[in-house]
Amino acid sequence: MLFPRFLLSAAAVAGAATAQGVSTYVNPAVPTGTPIPANYTGPLRPQVHYSPPTGFMNDPNGMFYLNGVFHLYYQYNPTGLGAGNQHWGHATSKDGYTWENQPIALFPPEEKQYVFSGSVVVDANNTSGFFPDQDNGVVAVFTLARYNEDGSGGPQTQAIAYSHDEGYTFQYYDQNPVINSTSSQFRDPKVIRYGDTWAMVVAYSQEFALGIFTSPDLKQWTWASNFTDHGLLGAQYECPNLVKMPVRDPESGAVVDEKYVMTLSVQPGAPLGGSITQYFIGDFNGTHFSTLDAATRLTDFAKDNYAAQFFYGVEGNQISLGWASNWQYAQQVPTGNNEGWRSAMTLPRASYLTKAPRIGWTMVDELYDAQPILGESLAAKTMGNGSVTVDYADVASGALYIEANVTGIDVAKATSFSTLNLTFTSPASGESLRSGFYFGGDNPFFVDRGQLRGFDNVFFTDKFSVADVYYESSTDKAAAWRVQAVIDRSMYEVFLDGGRHAGTVLLYPTQPLTLLNVAAGDLPAGARVSVAVWALKSTWAGVADERGTVLGNVTTKAPASKRHVIYQGGFSA
Amino acid sequence: MLFPRFLLSAAAVAGAATAQGVSTYVNPAVPTGTPIPANYTGPLRPQVHYSPPTGFMNDPNGMFYLNGVFHLYYQYNPTGLGAGNQHWGHATSKDGYTWENQPIALFPPEEKQYVFSGSVVVDANNTSGFFPDQDNGVVAVFTLARYNEDGSGGPQTQAIAYSHDEGYTFQYYDQNPVINSTSSQFRDPKVIRYGDTWAMVVAYSQEFALGIFTSPDLKQWTWASNFTDHGLLGAQYECPNLVKMPVRDPESGAVVDEKYVMTLSVQPGAPLGGSITQYFIGDFNGTHFSTLDAATRLTDFAKDNYAAQFFYGVEGNQISLGWASNWQYAQQVPTGNNEGWRSAMTLPRASYLTKAPRIGWTMVDELYDAQPILGESLAAKTMGNGSVTVDYADVASGALYIEANVTGIDVAKATSFSTLNLTFTSPASGESLRSGFYFGGDNPFFVDRGQLRGFDNVFFTDKFSVADVYYESSTDKAAAWRVQAVIDRSMYEVFLDGGRHAGTVLLYPTQPLTLLNVAAGDLPAGARVSVAVWALKSTWAGVADERGTVLGNVTTKAPASKRHVIYQGGFSA
Repeated sequence: MLFPRFLLSAAAVAGAATAQGVSTYVNPAVPTGTPIPANYTGPLRPQVHYSPPTGFMNDPNGMFYLNGVFHLYYQYNPTGLGAGNQHWGHATSKDGYTWENQPIALFPPEEKQYVFSGSVVVDANNTSGFFPDQDNGVVAVFTLARYNEDGSGGPQTQAIAYSHDEGYTFQYYDQNPVINSTSSQFRDPKVIRYGDTWAMVVAYSQEFALGIFTSPDLKQWTWASNFTDHGLLGAQYECPNLVKMPVRDPESGAVVDEKYVMTLSVQPGAPLGGSITQYFIGDFNGTHFSTLDAATRLTDFAKDNYAAQFFYGVEGNQISLGWASNWQYAQQVPTGNNEGWRSAMTLPRASYLTKAPRIGWTMVDELYDAQPILGESLAAKTMGNGSVTVDYADVASGALYIEANVTGIDVAKATSFSTLNLTFTSPASGESLRSGFYFGGDNPFFVDRGQLRGFDNVFFTDKFSVADVYYESSTDKAAAWRVQAVIDRSMYEVFLDGGRHAGTVLLYPTQPLTLLNVAAGDLPAGARVSVAVWALKSTWAGVADERGTVLGNVTTKAPASKRHVIYQGGFSA
Repeated sequence: MLFPRFLLSAAAVAGAATAQGVSTYVNPAVPTGTPIPANYTGPLRPQVHYSPPTGFMNDPNGMFYLNGVFHLYYQYNPTGLGAGNQHWGHATSKDGYTWENQPIALFPPEEKQYVFSGSVVVDANNTSGFFPDQDNGVVAVFTLARYNEDGSGGPQTQAIAYSHDEGYTFQYYDQNPVINSTSSQFRDPKVIRYGDTWAMVVAYSQEFALGIFTSPDLKQWTWASNFTDHGLLGAQYECPNLVKMPVRDPESGAVVDEKYVMTLSVQPGAPLGGSITQYFIGDFNGTHFSTLDAATRLTDFAKDNYAAQFFYGVEGNQISLGWASNWQYAQQVPTGNNEGWRSAMTLPRASYLTKAPRIGWTMVDELYDAQPILGESLAAKTMGNGSVTVDYADVASGALYIEANVTGIDVAKATSFSTLNLTFTSPASGESLRSGFYFGGDNPFFVDRGQLRGFDNVFFTDKFSVADVYYESSTDKAAAWRVQAVIDRSMYEVFLDGGRHAGTVLLYPTQPLTLLNVAAGDLPAGARVSVAVWALKSTWAGVADERGTVLGNVTTKAPASKRHVIYQGGFSA
């Protein structure tokens, strides 16, 4: 990650102090060894998405899955509502939805240095030598970003830290950096296992290049190749991922092959403005990544999903979370001033590759199994033209899961549009979030947040859309459509055709949206729409105390030894 | 071109008739041999952009430059306000801004066949044999698209027609098609001269491929190669262009090389929704196009410039016009119901290649010399923080040209944003079009049309932006910014840093915008802004009669012989 340039300097200036050379720097305002308590009850606070207790979050980092637990780290400024003062926050989950806040995992090793984005691997074979007595050793690989006295960016180097307790606490390696550099634009290492070696992809951000390095032990890294000038360049490359993914038959779903996916985030300069993630499909031989074509593909059709990372240690479909925001307005959204936090992660997605009808090769992003958070069924109806209205004002989470399936429209013969609209309204303010399908023509799905009035920002684009979302089975030539949608107070995520297209959309009404209307119109005879709506359980309510405060995990596995030297000020190396 | 799928069928059904096999089909509602008269005085009607007299226009076609005259043809439905019934409309200009309507140039050769997009070349050496006595023979190469009885698309084949009078009238070649096909997705040939041969690029639209063909005589075409799966795929490829372009030194502007640019329009499925144009930079050897990298670049940062075509016969910087719309709403915009026309072309752009600081290889799109349309100077001021307000209610065209240059901001040291805003307001309705720079951070420029209320459409995105628009000279490290903007009633076009970024934005206020405010805020000491504003002359007012009616060119060079058999109905082949 790199936050927008002016904010680097502003943050660095704001954080300036005199001490140098302490081996592990902790700003006295940042709590150590304990999760930060928080209140998750604000009207904009998502209930089934991860958001940090307080302060500012950006990129997901170091994600891995081990012994039934998903570990999410994240770029975290615990002392402000904008970027700066970067740590690795930490949360854990068993189901991908219900998160437990953990103590901050990585603090800056010294002042004027930030812990930027990176990844985690499980060093099961003790290649690093850090884990002579265990097969569950965890190593984090990340960027340390130095800042100069005048606020300008200094060198970005790649460093490692290791954990003997499955990622709850880390020790910095005493011979960092593991990849040195004088560049201020070299960051975000993502490491994977390839055969008997480790492979890293890391961004030379302003050279529009990704470096691929290999290592036997996570300490000694050898440059192997560059992957350069692919896709949309924007103004810099960030947060690459390289991941092996199953290729599934589009009809049967059976795994027929494996390929690699390189994801690559671009910021600023995305087509929709600001930040976006694109991906490339191809092959990896341990040292070189080659694409199967010269196409670039985007993970989302909206603009609020950036820097997604795949969990290390997952077999089969690959599971990811992204940062559900955009640098164009991440530091201005009203959750900061209103509720003391900014940014959430996307819902978990389970991804595979396939060749979809009409659009060809695509990474399908399925909504990860949402069963654990499903609450009461609020509606279930099959209809032709008609509508379903659900007043969900009494759903405590304010969050819903909606599924709609449409069949029986022969779009090749349509001479006008049929529609299926999903509209969320605040009866108190009259504001609405609009979304829906047009069946016929280019078969688009749209989302329009422009009718909400809680955030005025010249970069907060109102409308998003995607075309050709229909599914045409080779065995049943009639087109069929499917939308799965989660609304979660200030977030809306949609998955079309089982995840062939997906979009994450932030939204800021002045009053809570509490009324859902699902309406089908101008359908031809024989068309059918099945609609089902469930309340979602709040994943935070269950762990809050009587005042609504979430305390997080206080039974940390951290060893008794103090892990971080609290900054004591005044001395220099 | 191909209009959105459902419209194909709707249009075809609407146009269905019984006759077959007439050699040149003319719908009796379509005038022949005379320009269509029109009124260009409507409050949404652009005054310095080309728009058709009445009816519906889409892609520019057949553009060439010969003997001081720019010829623009265009996809034209003269009998409706949406796509269908496609002809080639025609207009000519000596300055690129002031257009004269000409008679329709190409009519469908038979019923249930449309004349789709294509290009024109000047066959100076009579390679075709059509021009034994002249060196100014003109050949059009285009797609004929057949429709089936049920409205579904039939074969698309490539055909030619020739003109002895420099493009005012055409004869169909009697052995069409010149490239046969059974595909309903094979279209939009663009032909260039390469050495002693002709080269064509044409889209296999739903295969995400461009075919490259060669010919000695424009009649016999040989397939040479395919250029496939590059860039953003969307759901189909359309309207390719291949053009040789100078490479200029970014500092001196001197031509240092030549390369080829392949432009490629995608519809639907663009990142911003609907239609967009991307381009690739590389080399062409007469049979194969190879890119210099795997990047894809977009011509615009907004979403209202599609299917641009370069004029054949231009030396040096290459001149283009695009269709200033988007299939997501082109057939719904309010100019249709309010004023009887839909769609305009962009302003002319003069393009070259360079390696720009920070962003690397880029096609620079300069605003083509606007001197011929410049009217009275309305403001010229150099200032620090401050503003310039221009009430242009009495500018008859309602159109302005604005230039602003900003210097003296050291963005590396900025800790907050400086701004320069260009805001256009309707005092009558309170609506505003907002745009402007933020200096610092990612240095974005934005346009926001979301405050205008004349058009409610779920695909009419409100906000567009681009990052890193500043120019940093290698000899003068201080950043400098430049914006050139044209507002023209319902159109806004901006060129940043001399065309390193460009955007075309449609806008529909309920009342005319008549007040411009250019305001600089929070500039550091020493920063300077120079602002200049000119009225633009209406290019249509001068040729309108006392009732405001533009009659077009009635002194056509067409030969006396009747060129088109008026459809007489009833008989079949």
